Amino acid sequence: MVKDGSIAINGITLIDGTDGAPIENASILIEDGKFVRIEKSPAEPFEAATVIDGRGKYAMPGLLDANVHLLDGLSLTNNFGGIEYLARYEGRLKELCEEAAQLSLKYGTTTVFDTGDPYRPIIGARDAINKGEVVGSRIYAAGAIIGQSGPFTRDFMVDGRTRATKRFADRLDSLWEWPGLGGELLLMDIEDVADRVQRHVETDIDIAKVFVTDHLVSSFQNSTAYLQFSHRVLERIFSIVQGAGLKLVTHTSSIESLDTVIDLGADVMVHHNVSQQVRMPDSLIEKVAAFKGWGAPQPVTNRFQHGLEAIGHGWARYGGGAHRDNLERMIQAGANLCLATDACESSIDRMADFTPEELTDRPWDLGRGSVYWLTAMVETGFTPAQALRGGTRDVAIAYGVDDKLGTVESGKIADIILLDADPLADVANVAKLNKVIKDGVVIDTAALPDNPVATVDGKFD
Amino acid sequence: MVKDGSIAINGITLIDGTDGAPIENASILIEDGKFVRIEKSPAEPFEAATVIDGRGKYAMPGLLDANVHLLDGLSLTNNFGGIEYLARYEGRLKELCEEAAQLSLKYGTTTVFDTGDPYRPIIGARDAINKGEVVGSRIYAAGAIIGQSGPFTRDFMVDGRTRATKRFADRLDSLWEWPGLGGELLLMDIEDVADRVQRHVETDIDIAKVFVTDHLVSSFQNSTAYLQFSHRVLERIFSIVQGAGLKLVTHTSSIESLDTVIDLGADVMVHHNVSQQVRMPDSLIEKVAAFKGWGAPQPVTNRFQHGLEAIGHGWARYGGGAHRDNLERMIQAGANLCLATDACESSIDRMADFTPEELTDRPWDLGRGSVYWLTAMVETGFTPAQALRGGTRDVAIAYGVDDKLGTVESGKIADIILLDADPLADVANVAKLNKVIKDGVVIDTAALPDNPVATVDGKFD
Amino acid sequence: MVKDGSIAINGITLIDGTDGAPIENASILIEDGKFVRIEKSPAEPFEAATVIDGRGKYAMPGLLDANVHLLDGLSLTNNFGGIEYLARYEGRLKELCEEAAQLSLKYGTTTVFDTGDPYRPIIGARDAINKGEVVGSRIYAAGAIIGQSGPFTRDFMVDGRTRATKRFADRLDSLWEWPGLGGELLLMDIEDVADRVQRHVETDIDIAKVFVTDHLVSSFQNSTAYLQFSHRVLERIFSIVQGAGLKLVTHTSSIESLDTVIDLGADVMVHHNVSQQVRMPDSLIEKVAAFKGWGAPQPVTNRFQHGLEAIGHGWARYGGGAHRDNLERMIQAGANLCLATDACESSIDRMADFTPEELTDRPWDLGRGSVYWLTAMVETGFTPAQALRGGTRDVAIAYGVDDKLGTVESGKIADIILLDADPLADVANVAKLNKVIKDGVVIDTAALPDNPVATVDGKFD
Amino acid sequence: MVKDGSIAINGITLIDGTDGAPIENASILIEDGKFVRIEKSPAEPFEAATVIDGRGKYAMPGLLDANVHLLDGLSLTNNFGGIEYLARYEGRLKELCEEAAQLSLKYGTTTVFDTGDPYRPIIGARDAINKGEVVGSRIYAAGAIIGQSGPFTRDFMVDGRTRATKRFADRLDSLWEWPGLGGELLLMDIEDVADRVQRHVETDIDIAKVFVTDHLVSSFQNSTAYLQFSHRVLERIFSIVQGAGLKLVTHTSSIESLDTVIDLGADVMVHHNVSQQVRMPDSLIEKVAAFKGWGAPQPVTNRFQHGLEAIGHGWARYGGGAHRDNLERMIQAGANLCLATDACESSIDRMADFTPEELTDRPWDLGRGSVYWLTAMVETGFTPAQALRGGTRDVAIAYGVDDKLGTVESGKIADIILLDADPLADVANVAKLNKVIKDGVVIDTAALPDNPVATVDGKFD
Repeated sequence: MVKDGSIAINGITLIDGTDGAPIENASILIEDGKFVRIEKSPAEPFEAATVIDGRGKYAMPGLLDANVHLLDGLSLTNNFGGIEYLARYEGRLKELCEEAAQLSLKYGTTTVFDTGDPYRPIIGARDAINKGEVVGSRIYAAGAIIGQSGPFTRDFMVDGRTRATKRFADRLDSLWEWPGLGGELLLMDIEDVADRVQRHVETDIDIAKVFVTDHLVSSFQNSTAYLQFSHRVLERIFSIVQGAGLKLVTHTSSIESLDTVIDLGADVMVHHNVSQQVRMPDSLIEKVAAFKGWGAPQPVTNRFQHGLEAIGHGWARYGGGAHRDNLERMIQAGANLCLATDACESSIDRMADFTPEELTDRPWDLGRGSVYWLTAMVETGFTPAQALRGGTRDVAIAYGVDDKLGTVESGKIADIILLDADPLADVANVAKLNKVIKDGVVIDTAALPDNPVATVDGKFD
Repeated sequence: MVKDGSIAINGITLIDGTDGAPIENASILIEDGKFVRIEKSPAEPFEAATVIDGRGKYAMPGLLDANVHLLDGLSLTNNFGGIEYLARYEGRLKELCEEAAQLSLKYGTTTVFDTGDPYRPIIGARDAINKGEVVGSRIYAAGAIIGQSGPFTRDFMVDGRTRATKRFADRLDSLWEWPGLGGELLLMDIEDVADRVQRHVETDIDIAKVFVTDHLVSSFQNSTAYLQFSHRVLERIFSIVQGAGLKLVTHTSSIESLDTVIDLGADVMVHHNVSQQVRMPDSLIEKVAAFKGWGAPQPVTNRFQHGLEAIGHGWARYGGGAHRDNLERMIQAGANLCLATDACESSIDRMADFTPEELTDRPWDLGRGSVYWLTAMVETGFTPAQALRGGTRDVAIAYGVDDKLGTVESGKIADIILLDADPLADVANVAKLNKVIKDGVVIDTAALPDNPVATVDGKFD
Repeated sequence: MVKDGSIAINGITLIDGTDGAPIENASILIEDGKFVRIEKSPAEPFEAATVIDGRGKYAMPGLLDANVHLLDGLSLTNNFGGIEYLARYEGRLKELCEEAAQLSLKYGTTTVFDTGDPYRPIIGARDAINKGEVVGSRIYAAGAIIGQSGPFTRDFMVDGRTRATKRFADRLDSLWEWPGLGGELLLMDIEDVADRVQRHVETDIDIAKVFVTDHLVSSFQNSTAYLQFSHRVLERIFSIVQGAGLKLVTHTSSIESLDTVIDLGADVMVHHNVSQQVRMPDSLIEKVAAFKGWGAPQPVTNRFQHGLEAIGHGWARYGGGAHRDNLERMIQAGANLCLATDACESSIDRMADFTPEELTDRPWDLGRGSVYWLTAMVETGFTPAQALRGGTRDVAIAYGVDDKLGTVESGKIADIILLDADPLADVANVAKLNKVIKDGVVIDTAALPDNPVATVDGKFD
Repeated sequence: MVKDGSIAINGITLIDGTDGAPIENASILIEDGKFVRIEKSPAEPFEAATVIDGRGKYAMPGLLDANVHLLDGLSLTNNFGGIEYLARYEGRLKELCEEAAQLSLKYGTTTVFDTGDPYRPIIGARDAINKGEVVGSRIYAAGAIIGQSGPFTRDFMVDGRTRATKRFADRLDSLWEWPGLGGELLLMDIEDVADRVQRHVETDIDIAKVFVTDHLVSSFQNSTAYLQFSHRVLERIFSIVQGAGLKLVTHTSSIESLDTVIDLGADVMVHHNVSQQVRMPDSLIEKVAAFKGWGAPQPVTNRFQHGLEAIGHGWARYGGGAHRDNLERMIQAGANLCLATDACESSIDRMADFTPEELTDRPWDLGRGSVYWLTAMVETGFTPAQALRGGTRDVAIAYGVDDKLGTVESGKIADIILLDADPLADVANVAKLNKVIKDGVVIDTAALPDNPVATVDGKFD
């Protein structure tokens, strides 16, 4: 007798996310949101409320993205469209987070780690998804970033306040920095910093992120990397966060800051290959490789990079040169590296401003960006198998949730995607999505987003 | 037998807006939205569905404002809050116009002449009010201004486009300039200009306005006044507008531009006392005084002016110095001068940015500004009676609607306000509103605005 | 017996600047700074203190440029380098003018009409050259432009004052506007404008220039063309200037402004083909062609235009599209057109900022620009003979100095250039300079500039 | 027999800069630039080539200023006048340094420690003064600051490069950062940083300064304090500098950065009371007090502070609030505190931009600022005797030159100032200068500056 809501997938080639070889002609049974049986060539196809014929198809775990910002941080950082975005969507930010989580899920990323967004909207969206009120990628949320100020500060829009009202700017900054994690931490006594961080970890967050270096990068023509906290203050922050059982994510952008967070034992290091185009010494690469923590690097595809270089685009600086060289050496040295896109959801008006070169394989494209990451990593030195594990199991390990996520194994949460072509032959085949199953439910991806906000193209008066 | 909806006001002191003396112990009967009987000390008090005891009170025509912009043009011109305002309210601009018309009505201005706002929202609001779907001041609308560009141009926000998305900016500019009246007219052949203006007067506008001089004033530290059109192009524009039976309103800001529009026979000249602080020669003052067209000057109260001067505020330049001197001489010379505030409705966030000095007797305060105008004109040389007529009958004459508006006379539309104190004793008493009646209906002013938009104070996420 | 300082040129092919055919095997005798004998194939070669063997060479009148600004107005207009330029050279502006006149002469332009530069430096340089104290092109100077404000105003650097001290900015603005011709004229009563212009024509200027349209073009993304003066004020200005016996030069930038100055009878109309990329109606082209005044258009070479277009450079807007189309039609219609470059001398630091595309055939290159004009005009429709006359005799006619300049004829001032190749075969051969003779003196062009200022490349501490 | 150039001062009240009481009726003999005999009430007045009657006068050591920047860093930091200043004086920066040293000497400061200025000009000026080629305060120079970038970077003028030519900006940045000490150090590997610092200490500098926190303060509305270097990099820098026998000066601007430099053993800590208006915890004040290194705080006089507060000037933030409170507690706790003004020499044009409030007791006024420091410190809690020692002997101790400077004692360098009133009665009496003697020579202060550069008020064309 089949269980209500159960799903059987028969005859599929399963890449289960472990180190094992692909399992051909596998059958998978899902019940109560979990994988309950997985067998190679069973005598009988599995039966279930829903039976999927997997022949000629490929299954793998749903992707996990170790670094997203569901709200559009990109517009904010370059001062182009930020005020417009915030004014238009203020009051609907939770809905924006949900819409973003749906875009992510639509393209096969079943879990995202949102490493920085205002607390109330992101926690609201997370909870609405967890409770099943809203469909979307599973969200693990950091809330505000320790040491990052709001959109109307130097961290995003240097002169944003000269173009907006004070009440509006104050309201948004306060929302972004809640519960008091903004730049004033840099000026505080160590004990006061500790109090703030303690208060933060006692809120309902899942992970915590620290700005080890500044966020001024887009404010200036000439790049730099200031340190935000002294070594002893960082130690204290790490101790509070990790002492509270939370994984600690770091933002670094220089050789010295990366060296520091390794010494301090970071859990996940986003864009750790970024060093303001200074080539990392081999000794640092070796230190990264020997480290148990996980890097969440930002590779770009050759197509994206060449397109930017052809038009002399400033972003070419991000994924090319020393940053790519650093990453290649990390791969060769065998460092722990998992999928992270830093993606966000931009409004339809903002999207219209992008040039074709900016849009092709855009690494920050929420949803599709995960596949670009896989492709870019293979171009940079990963094998396809390494890339697929980097986008599934390894993210789960990095965040300590591999007991329930990241592989297709009995007892784990049933997040799985079915593909029309073999991702081990070409990781870009992950884009050939046939079905997305999350929590044991087949997602109607065509219907997403089901409550469009930023993707609405209107004619307004 | 009393008519449904009829109103009788008995025992009131009536300042009827004509040149006659106040009528004490007057009775007024309103039926079907019109005044039908007005008598001094009738034998019996009038009867009606609603009877108002006017003893101890004063009645006068509802105020008319010859120059408003119901949408917040102020925020746009100084680049402080403009993007925020447009992004927040795009799609609700008609509602904003209605809300503004309600604020205006709430304070006793029963008719406004909106001399420049995007066509679709302002015409939409006008029609909704005319049809009785929405309560609000009666609107006569100019739609777009001939020769004014949209908010994301030099006419409002010099660098607004560097902070917004192109699609958004284009959409708003296009809305504002519809049907093609923006700055490109300055570059066109005279015949092409004529075609555009012809198309404009064939839309559903009530009046038309021309930018004779530029709108760059807030873009630069050092003020100037460029001419937008050559003399022959202006002649052509005047001819088309007035030939279509529309009153022509002019924007001037210099001696020479004022001289020109008098020669060309403008109907209403807004802020015609403004001359970039250059004292107008007496010969020009005499020319203004001899002219049949109407000036709609912008006086400020002493309290406002002194407050600004005390803090060295840039706006002090607007109502003081030569601009006040010009106006004083116009008054002494007996020029035609009627009430105009250039007022608009700002958002609650924008309002919070004003300093106390900016807010005290703010001439651009929609609704209350009309009373500040009366006070300021008396301080500048008008008698109270002149001021009251300037704020009622004279606006109606200027716009050629004195057959139905502007006085309390039998057969005219029943727009009347009741006051608790004598406005001839002190024109500031016009603020002591007891009742506002428009179209023969007592307005529930306390309930306005009844669909708050820009006045909503929210806590948003 | 030969006269001291006399020069004989024998056996040369002479293009004398009249409508006649080239004179082969001509002999030319120069005495006391003038041409005294010109003969075709004389029996004997002429004798003189200096005898030049002209065989195989070509002679033509020295070039005249109807529109230069010897100081670097370019840097000022785009806010890029203006403060630096002014601060570095303040106190040496006369020397800069002289250096510029030397660069001009070095490349064969023996006379320049400086249509706008601060009075004291330009008149100082003019006089020093006239007195023979300094070598350089002969200068006719307009001093300040009627209605143009100084460098620290909207006419040049919109926000320049936020980056400089007030004293410095005031000092320079005052110098540029002397004797009070800046933008305040736009705000004045007509009689006050007349007084200022009268005062101006009574100074020691040779010509006068009026800004009919604004100079904001580089201040804004979106182009426009405001009128600076009303028709009657313009009439008054024309009357005063031409009444004082001075030629009147106009700055226009739109269809309507060009139409106006033709009606008013301008003498020289600089860049009159420029119309903010709006195609002039054929009726206006015909009006130009029928007009006795002279256009001084700004063509660009195909090479320059294509280079700019290839890199999407903003300047491509200047010489291409409708502006070129306007000019082509003017040429076809037979309009009066003479050489004008609008060239200036930039500092060596500023020059280093130009890209190769900006530098190739740069029309504003002082000296070399004259030859680019000839080439560009031939590419746009002139015959070589028309171009050569446009660059010599026609400028002299336009400015009413053809009794002494512009052709190689007996009795005229001996300004002549010798070329190594035939300019009628290819006007670019004018760059193949063999000798430059001005006022009957062979110029040591290799030694110019002999007092380098802006061309000094230093290592400074 | 008296020595050539010897000076005797008889009958003066001597405050010798030691802890001893003032010596009344003292006689002082100066020979060969040194004090050779000092006696109280000697039997006979001393004889010398020059004999000064000191009766009724007061003598004290010449003042020493622990922190100046002889070039005008102020203009550079606020982007107001910086380009103008650099362009005008490029090529004369050494002369500017000399002029500044003369202004300093003119007002009684005989020794200045220039803690940051471009190497070539400041070392050139120092050497010219040391060799006696130029009169001026004795200079100890740091050259460039470790980790500070040039004027056309975020450290001074955020958008300066958009207003200047690239060559000019590059040239000046390179001059300022020589020998490669700019912000790129923040991005380098620790070994590369060490190489740069090693190269720096091997140049001809006297002291070295490190930017422990950023120099962005004037770039932003909202203040912050980033750390420039990690703890281990700072340790390395300290070790190299102090290992080379140089005193190390620190720039800090926050609680945490001050705590760090105390731990690391800084020698002189400029404006160490500055903490972005966050009150330092008492524990830090105690740590400062217990520390052997010297603070060089920036007090302001009450008159200056009250003037700024009255007009709401942004600078009021600098000397008031928590910064004053921090300093008061440091004084009460007995911390080592010596005179430092951070003064510089501004151009006469820049000076004209200052308001009266900015000019009254301006702490950064080169020369006069030393006396304002004395007054301000007494207002903040010092006794007059403490203040005078802080401005003389203590600076010498801080920099390890108390073996030859800072007191009036036999064998020391004869730097001494004579006053017309008692500085112990009122430290402001130090401004009542009667004579300035440096290196045993009476300075003709009236003749200073003897080669005016920035103080020249010209009328330029």
